Amino acid sequence: MADQYAQTPVGTAPSTLPSLRWDEPPEGPVVVLLDQTRLPAEEVELVCTDVPALVGAIQTLAVRGAPLLGIAGAYGVALAAARGYEVEEAAELLAGARPTAVNLAYGVRRAVAAHRAAIEKGEDRDAAAGAALAEARALHREDAEASVLMAGHGLALLDELLPGGGHRILTHCNTGALVSGGEGTAFAVALEAHRTGRLRRLWVDETRPLLQGARLTAYEAARNGMAYTLLTDNAAGSLFAAGEVDAVLIGADRIAADGSVANKIGSYPLAVLAKYHHVPFIVVAPTTTIDLTTPDGASIEVEQRPGQEVTELTAPPQVLSGGVGVGGGLPVAPLGTQAYNPAFDVTPPELVTAIVTELGAVSPVTGGGISELCARSRQVTIS
Amino acid sequence: MADQYAQTPVGTAPSTLPSLRWDEPPEGPVVVLLDQTRLPAEEVELVCTDVPALVGAIQTLAVRGAPLLGIAGAYGVALAAARGYEVEEAAELLAGARPTAVNLAYGVRRAVAAHRAAIEKGEDRDAAAGAALAEARALHREDAEASVLMAGHGLALLDELLPGGGHRILTHCNTGALVSGGEGTAFAVALEAHRTGRLRRLWVDETRPLLQGARLTAYEAARNGMAYTLLTDNAAGSLFAAGEVDAVLIGADRIAADGSVANKIGSYPLAVLAKYHHVPFIVVAPTTTIDLTTPDGASIEVEQRPGQEVTELTAPPQVLSGGVGVGGGLPVAPLGTQAYNPAFDVTPPELVTAIVTELGAVSPVTGGGISELCARSRQVTIS
Repeated sequence: MADQYAQTPVGTAPSTLPSLRWDEPPEGPVVVLLDQTRLPAEEVELVCTDVPALVGAIQTLAVRGAPLLGIAGAYGVALAAARGYEVEEAAELLAGARPTAVNLAYGVRRAVAAHRAAIEKGEDRDAAAGAALAEARALHREDAEASVLMAGHGLALLDELLPGGGHRILTHCNTGALVSGGEGTAFAVALEAHRTGRLRRLWVDETRPLLQGARLTAYEAARNGMAYTLLTDNAAGSLFAAGEVDAVLIGADRIAADGSVANKIGSYPLAVLAKYHHVPFIVVAPTTTIDLTTPDGASIEVEQRPGQEVTELTAPPQVLSGGVGVGGGLPVAPLGTQAYNPAFDVTPPELVTAIVTELGAVSPVTGGGISELCARSRQVTIS
Repeated sequence: MADQYAQTPVGTAPSTLPSLRWDEPPEGPVVVLLDQTRLPAEEVELVCTDVPALVGAIQTLAVRGAPLLGIAGAYGVALAAARGYEVEEAAELLAGARPTAVNLAYGVRRAVAAHRAAIEKGEDRDAAAGAALAEARALHREDAEASVLMAGHGLALLDELLPGGGHRILTHCNTGALVSGGEGTAFAVALEAHRTGRLRRLWVDETRPLLQGARLTAYEAARNGMAYTLLTDNAAGSLFAAGEVDAVLIGADRIAADGSVANKIGSYPLAVLAKYHHVPFIVVAPTTTIDLTTPDGASIEVEQRPGQEVTELTAPPQVLSGGVGVGGGLPVAPLGTQAYNPAFDVTPPELVTAIVTELGAVSPVTGGGISELCARSRQVTIS
């Protein structure tokens, strides 16, 4: 089950609570998450003592973002093992919690493999649990290292594509420290540009329906003292038309073998706008996001989420006193309104200028380039 | 000042309150508006007894939509005249209430011209006020007639472009009876398709930040029994990619002499998507929306609205009990977040398949086609 502690009132300076941590209080090991559904109004940690609680946190997006989902999956397996639950069953629950982000299944698979290998070597339950935890920690560390490398490769690519400096970068959804063991993917590149004096402006798409841009990216940008401006997703077009966007930087939830990129809904229209305006469209993701078993964009399963996320405005329950709808939010559309609410869209490789990974950039984006990159990566070939 | 009456509780069947009406209770003439900021939760009429109240209603978008703003402007002049206020001063206030929709200034100008002509003919104040009111009523009636004609021309064009029928139409913002003396512009075409059994689906963009699609278009679609589905603005891309959109139909706030179209923010990215996917992008607007004194898109003044519309979720005040921000809404972004919030964007003529007016369609959209159309229209040549 999940419990909450460490509440910060609205308006206080943001703390540096990590997005996810393993803890071992006297009552037994737990996975502690920064509840991303409450940001930026308050910083509340969600304590998961078992796998169903963690699965719930994944499904309600209390924890989210492709790389962090991988880490959460691995720690989830370690939690099941340490608490003596059935590990293979827990792994299946975790891997199936959300269908699109490939990292989740990857993190689960790695921790299960480590656990299984220990058992097969004849080690006892505690040692096998220790092996699963060690693997989760390794993945966590690798992801932090990958962030640093992606930030470096991404900034080098920006400098090459935009030699003038003073980058004005448009981003979508949230791809910073909240999704990663480190400083994230696309956001980490923008942050590196900021730290080296090369970021003129970060344009932040609010990212409907759940407003990860307004709530989370703006929070991370403010926390880092970056020059940022928020906009509705549909206002990006007029920024492009005014020549105010030098590059688009986004993350990814799954990259198919042909280089098709599944990412937060709203990424594809930005890719089309970028193409029309001859602006580089750059995807930043660790190689763990590449799934060679998915041949192309059409094969990517896209999660459909409840219509209430669109027909109702979601807000922390304490600020709503009346007129609360089916989904617990504030109804904006007439009762009975149907909504189309895919969580992701798919951008074909011909619209992607480059995919930046911890191993370097692939550009132009082709199946051959992707497969060559993966051949250099030990991580994506694990079964 | 403005007052309110005729409240309908949430969840009751929608009534058929007109979006705007002239009334003459014993206390004196008034302009009565259906308060569009409260829809669809409740139907409240806003009673304006003077011009400042009407200007306030225009600025808060209680009354909105290009054709209806023209009608409101004309009745506003009639109201000033009937109540004995300074007419020219009232006209200036009204015409400047919002800068982008050309119809507002046009409606004001027509009523003022009628009033002035009566005075110049030596008629008394009452007769001159009567002349202004008669002109407002004429404009109101002409707009209703224009709706019928646009619906017919628009559907004929759809049938020509999409001979298969079973149209799946994507629309943005709100362009129905709420913006018009009749059934509207783009929405009236979709409604005509529905009535003649040729509408398979109306895709309704929610239209951030003020959600006119979710609140108003969904309300009008539900009221008319149309098959409609709501989506976030950024989800339109994946509908295009899936081949689920046969045509885009939108309204306009100002059309420049070269055929550039200013319309609700988010229209331009739809035009780029439509072009990329070879889908017709059709603008439906009366000729009163064409402004030959604006030569091109770059000359259109685009209204910038308060950032709080983006950084806070707006909701009727009675449902919010805490955490209310500067703009009276629910803060979603960190305190101090700047937002870019233009009310409109501009679509260049090369992205517009056709402009449908009450006088017929212009296609391809060129300066020559626009000027030829205007030469046939008595209305747009009034000074």
